[in-house]
Formats: sequence, structure tokens, C-alpha cells
Amino acid sequence: MQYPSKLIESAVQEIARLPGIGKKTALRLALHILKQDVEHIQALTDSLLAMRLHSQYCSKCMNLSDAEICNICNSKLRNHEILCVVEDTKDVLALENTGHYNGLYYVLGGVISPVNGIGVSDLNFDKLIEKFPNSDIKEVILALSPTIDGDTTAFYLSKKLKTFGVKISTIARGVQVGSDLEYVDEITLGRSIQRRIEYDNL
Amino acid sequence: MQYPSKLIESAVQEIARLPGIGKKTALRLALHILKQDVEHIQALTDSLLAMRLHSQYCSKCMNLSDAEICNICNSKLRNHEILCVVEDTKDVLALENTGHYNGLYYVLGGVISPVNGIGVSDLNFDKLIEKFPNSDIKEVILALSPTIDGDTTAFYLSKKLKTFGVKISTIARGVQVGSDLEYVDEITLGRSIQRRIEYDNL
Repeated sequence: MQYPSKLIESAVQEIARLPGIGKKTALRLALHILKQDVEHIQALTDSLLAMRLHSQYCSKCMNLSDAEICNICNSKLRNHEILCVVEDTKDVLALENTGHYNGLYYVLGGVISPVNGIGVSDLNFDKLIEKFPNSDIKEVILALSPTIDGDTTAFYLSKKLKTFGVKISTIARGVQVGSDLEYVDEITLGRSIQRRIEYDNL
Repeated sequence: MQYPSKLIESAVQEIARLPGIGKKTALRLALHILKQDVEHIQALTDSLLAMRLHSQYCSKCMNLSDAEICNICNSKLRNHEILCVVEDTKDVLALENTGHYNGLYYVLGGVISPVNGIGVSDLNFDKLIEKFPNSDIKEVILALSPTIDGDTTAFYLSKKLKTFGVKISTIARGVQVGSDLEYVDEITLGRSIQRRIEYDNL
């Protein structure tokens, strides 16, 4: 595409590097930005740079945090005997939004993925293992995505953690609320009938 | 949503102001940005600010340009007797990509839209009208979107331009190439049979 201006071209190229944003969307965003007040764009660019430069991670759970130790790890209202291991900050937010979990978190920063070249050394495994054996934690919940990479990571972690005699669980799998049985994949449906639960426990 | 860090929260809020980007996408983009090298983010923010601060518009066609007069208006290879009126830069790029137009452009910067509070005075009408009556232009093509706002703007412009005795045309409407007749809306299909064209002219 032949852009009318070099400034637009370079902005479109930079925006299109973001995941899920193609050249057409990038151009639409660039033209939108052109129409905004300079202060708005300054606020956008300042907040992006500030986030990138000054963000820190909680030294206990490796989640993003404004302080050395995050609000969740610091809270006395939370159950410090349960630890939920998740892939990233998005998952912490998703679980917090359910309102059904009151324990602590541990953020791996990714999952093992040989295809993408992500191995054990690229993730925050060490600090998790270091917590044991002298720890209050009685149960570790592996809340990773039900994908090949997520399952691989869960398998690796469960092997490591079992040696400390801690209870290891994983979030339930089955048909999703609101889904149509007809369209549920066979593996999920097969497992959900094998691991059926008593109606009163639903 | 309770974000783990104020820096993330403000970045997400700023990103989510962009059109078509919700809070979830904004969070995904923010977490992506966090993982990038600082130089990449600096390049992104610099290019956005530079574009916003230093972009200029061609004084002849009002399109974005790196110079006082843009490449298209300056080109001797183009037909200076035809002027194509479009809404914005995206439309210039779309028409240029077809390779079927060799005339000049004029960018209105929007269309009349009472619902969005955009009136005649908010758009670049004056410079277009100023070109007449002493002009080489023999034909004005109104290439505006076939929407109520686009049609209103085209009607307003055609009334104004008719007084200068210039030929006024609009891009053809009809069924789109590759579309399935079954799903074409009635107005388009009705018009396309009324205004049918000789097969040899297709």
C-alpha cells in the first residue's frame, strides 16, 4: 500500500506490530489518533511508556504489582494455605472476577511450549519451588488452560510438587454453562460423562 | 475490574479509548507491550506522537501529505480534469489500490452527519468550492459511502457544484463481485435490475 505520508506509514507499521491488529485496522487507528487532541495522545503514549518502564512484579506471586508485595499476598483476609498457579495476569483477573476464590496466586508468566521455544528456564518455576518444603501451603491448584501446552506444564509441575507432599488439584473440566451439548467436542463430553458428579454436588 | 497495578490500569484505560478496542483487548495489548523491549515501545509511542504533531495536509486536495502539495496533486502523469471527492484518506488508498483511477482527489474529512453533530462547517467544503468556476476540472466524481450520511453529503455537493456547469458523477452501485444474489439486500438488487447495463459494457 502506498501511504500518502511517511509519518502515517511509520505509525501504521508500529501499530500493526501489536497482536491481532492488521494493516487495515492499524490505519483506522492511526487516522483516529490524528483527529484527537494532542493531550489525549500524549496521555496514551505516556501511560504505555510508564507501564513498560516502571511496572514491577510482586516478589511472592510474580503478579504485576505497584509495590514489592502485592495486595493479594499482603491481605490477611485471604487464605494463605491455598495457592492457585496461573499462566498470567489475565487469569488472575478472570478468577478474581468469579468471586469464588479466596486463596493466593502464583503467576508463571507463560506455559511450557516447545513449538514457541518456551522452556522451563523461561518461566517463573524456581520461585514457586523455593516456597517448599517449609511453607503454610496445603493445596496447590493448577489453573492452566486445557491445551497441550497447559497440560504439559501442569504435568511437569505436579511431578515437582508431589515430592513436597502437598495436595495438588486442577480446575474442573466439563461442559461449559450455557453450551449446547450437540456442539461440545467429543473429548470434553466423553470425560464429563466418565467423571460425572452427584447431582446434589452440582 | 480490579487491576493489580495502577500503571496497568491507566494504560488499559488509555488503550480502550481507541475505537473498536474494548477493556479485554486493551488488557491483552498492555500485557503484550509489557513483554516487549523498551526500544520497540519507544518506537511505537514516538511514531504516534510524531504523526499527530507533524502531519500536514496537502493544500490542494486536503489529503495527508509530507509536503505542502502532495505527490498526486503534483504529478504530471495524472489527469487534472477529473476530481474524485472522498470522505477520508482510507478511501484514497482504496481507490489507488484498484489501479483504475488516474485523476485527482479531494478529501472532505468526513460526511454530513446530524446524528454525530457533523455539519457543513466541520468539513473541507470551502476549499472544494473555491476551485470553481476558474478551474480545469471537467468532471467531479462523488465517491462517498452509500449510506444516509454519504448520500446527504453527495446531494448537498451536487447542488452546489451544478451551478458551475461541471459534470457530476457518482461511483456505480449494484451487486458486488463475488456476492451471492440470494443475500443481496432488496434495495441494491432492485436498483441493479432497474439500472441494468448492456452485457458488452460489463
